[in-house]
Amino acid sequence: MDIQEYMQNVGQAARQASREIARADTRQKNAALEAMASAIERDSEKLLAANRRDVEQAVAEGLAPAMVDRLTLNASTIASMAEGLRQIATLPDPVGEMDDFCYRPSGIQLGKMRVPLGVVGIIYEARPNVTADAAGLCLKSGNATILRGGSEAFHSNQAIAACVHEGLAAAGLPQTAVQVLETTDRAAVGALITMPEYVDVIVPRGGKGLIARISAEARVPVIKHLDGNCHSYVDEKADLAKALTVCDNAKTHRYGTCNTMETLLVHQAVAAEFLPQICAIYAAKGVEMRGDAATRAIVGADKVGAASEEDWFTEYAAAIIAIRVVDDLDSAIAHINHYGSHHTDAILTEDYSRARRFLREVDSSSVMVNASTRFADGFEYGLGAEIGISTDKIHARGPVGLEGLTSQKWVVLGDGQIRS
Amino acid sequence: MDIQEYMQNVGQAARQASREIARADTRQKNAALEAMASAIERDSEKLLAANRRDVEQAVAEGLAPAMVDRLTLNASTIASMAEGLRQIATLPDPVGEMDDFCYRPSGIQLGKMRVPLGVVGIIYEARPNVTADAAGLCLKSGNATILRGGSEAFHSNQAIAACVHEGLAAAGLPQTAVQVLETTDRAAVGALITMPEYVDVIVPRGGKGLIARISAEARVPVIKHLDGNCHSYVDEKADLAKALTVCDNAKTHRYGTCNTMETLLVHQAVAAEFLPQICAIYAAKGVEMRGDAATRAIVGADKVGAASEEDWFTEYAAAIIAIRVVDDLDSAIAHINHYGSHHTDAILTEDYSRARRFLREVDSSSVMVNASTRFADGFEYGLGAEIGISTDKIHARGPVGLEGLTSQKWVVLGDGQIRS
Repeated sequence: MDIQEYMQNVGQAARQASREIARADTRQKNAALEAMASAIERDSEKLLAANRRDVEQAVAEGLAPAMVDRLTLNASTIASMAEGLRQIATLPDPVGEMDDFCYRPSGIQLGKMRVPLGVVGIIYEARPNVTADAAGLCLKSGNATILRGGSEAFHSNQAIAACVHEGLAAAGLPQTAVQVLETTDRAAVGALITMPEYVDVIVPRGGKGLIARISAEARVPVIKHLDGNCHSYVDEKADLAKALTVCDNAKTHRYGTCNTMETLLVHQAVAAEFLPQICAIYAAKGVEMRGDAATRAIVGADKVGAASEEDWFTEYAAAIIAIRVVDDLDSAIAHINHYGSHHTDAILTEDYSRARRFLREVDSSSVMVNASTRFADGFEYGLGAEIGISTDKIHARGPVGLEGLTSQKWVVLGDGQIRS
Repeated sequence: MDIQEYMQNVGQAARQASREIARADTRQKNAALEAMASAIERDSEKLLAANRRDVEQAVAEGLAPAMVDRLTLNASTIASMAEGLRQIATLPDPVGEMDDFCYRPSGIQLGKMRVPLGVVGIIYEARPNVTADAAGLCLKSGNATILRGGSEAFHSNQAIAACVHEGLAAAGLPQTAVQVLETTDRAAVGALITMPEYVDVIVPRGGKGLIARISAEARVPVIKHLDGNCHSYVDEKADLAKALTVCDNAKTHRYGTCNTMETLLVHQAVAAEFLPQICAIYAAKGVEMRGDAATRAIVGADKVGAASEEDWFTEYAAAIIAIRVVDDLDSAIAHINHYGSHHTDAILTEDYSRARRFLREVDSSSVMVNASTRFADGFEYGLGAEIGISTDKIHARGPVGLEGLTSQKWVVLGDGQIRS
């Protein structure tokens, strides 16, 4: 069968399954999630064997060690997959939630009902745990899903898919509600993102290059996460002790995450007091510092390298930080809106009016006062789990959980009303 | 200046203005709306003169009478434009609304703030009143907008733009917050829908062909309205007197609107009683009827023509109706989900469980019980005004008002919290 025909069949089956999944009741969906978790636990040896095949091939082909690391499953990551599915079962079912009912002057009663999006396509790299996670989130939110993981994880993903299908069948749900593509042909991705008749939204999870390419070629809406170039701004009126703790945490808690602070902005009035203290912490932790002229003059050009224009735009995802002294709140906001990626930005201040202006005027998916940018994720926000973090403004912004995989339709309850 | 360069300049100016408009306060935005309305009233003679130029040319070029009709302004339509802007001023300002604040276990206080989308591009046909309406809605929702109206309305739109700009200036807001393209070059549309760096969303208002073309070529999210193939289903347990009134209204109140019923589905158990009555009403009003074999057998093949497969898919937007007898609720839901356009569909029934199933299982932007499909619009839903009706599931579904032109960002209020 040629790849276009294969994808047409997958799409049709997903559309068909989406109608059954949309009306599945909560108990049925939770039973499927529990059964998937049990199957994964029971089959852990099988999963490890399939994963070994993938890992051996990846090593032989010279895949980068960091990628091999993410590809590799062990007893603990398999237990986490099962645990993740059970946690999704405990989350409230968003489907069918009704809100905002009110009577209109015509006598109709108007409200909204939360409904699944339909068919969700997820494209991700060689991380087998995403297969279970994404399958669980889409099922609970009432969507059918088509999963396309990195080809390096092919055998691992097929083994996980078998457990997922067993769980669906055990709960009386169609196995086509979760389809893991049985091909590594790249043309399958091209087909998946250009079938608006079968796919309602695409969620790409992976590097910026992958996401940019998918966004450019998709004929289906994309919930995308580009970069996380996050800022902390230490205002003139900051409590410097708090600022020190928060700016330490925002940069050094974890270097590789998208909500890690990449640029520190400091008001000129407190720079001479604050910068030497925070830079001593960074230096002690081995963080490379790149600053503007004012920062280097205060901290020392031997300790802080020169930041280029490019640095202000950069998400390092590494133990590197850019530091700039700014004139005032306006300069800080202008810097963030210009160089930032509209992900997560924080102000450190005790000044009410400045905090209020920062929250309103910084155009980012999360804006914070006196808190570490590291809080911007689905777990900390209480979403239970996240399918990704959106840097878009349309549909969903910031961490996307079950609600982001749904939409709302209007409900009108009448008693024979007609329009006059 | 070449058209690409011109559009780059327009885009840059819009992005710049969007930041000012986003933080404009409610009073300022309302003052601008009032000043626009006053300018339109004061300049009504100028507007009529500009419009006469467009209309004369359109007539000379043989534009269809219905389109000339929509293009033509008169004293009353000009008064409506001004009145529409004043009504938008009375609507609550959605920007900055804060919701859902709660404390998380970490101690941060988490909530959401409603924010503008940024820059909205609107592409529409030769209806000058849309220029004022769209400008007003985008301004109130804190967005900058780029308007591209049909070339036949060029002079009318420029005259309205002058009033809009005067209103913005009077309130101290940048005139570039509303830009009406000063070109009729079609390449401008191609540029507008492929500038994601300057345009956040495109709202096309017009025929299905225009919208399909824009959706296919856009590199920017599109809030689109395709067809309105709406259904009423008269269930076995319907109150037939109510059903008669509602099905009459849904079809005959207005023929050309997108929320008009196009196909009537009737449960077999009540078909013999209900169909002759409703068909007598349609016949008396000159509605052409096309039915399946069962309908024709009941009502008479002389009164009801034969419906083809194509009829079930068709939005007539005319005094024509398709009629089908169905076996049961399941058949009705299956018909609607298969042939419909996911716009607005109603069930007529007194049966609780059937109403509940219809609401849940029909996948449309508005689902109704015992009410006319004609209620599906922004005014009847209390949105005050609508920028369009979305048949998409992503971002906004059904009538789109001020809220649909906004998004929500996350707000975190802390007191020095760090992530552990």
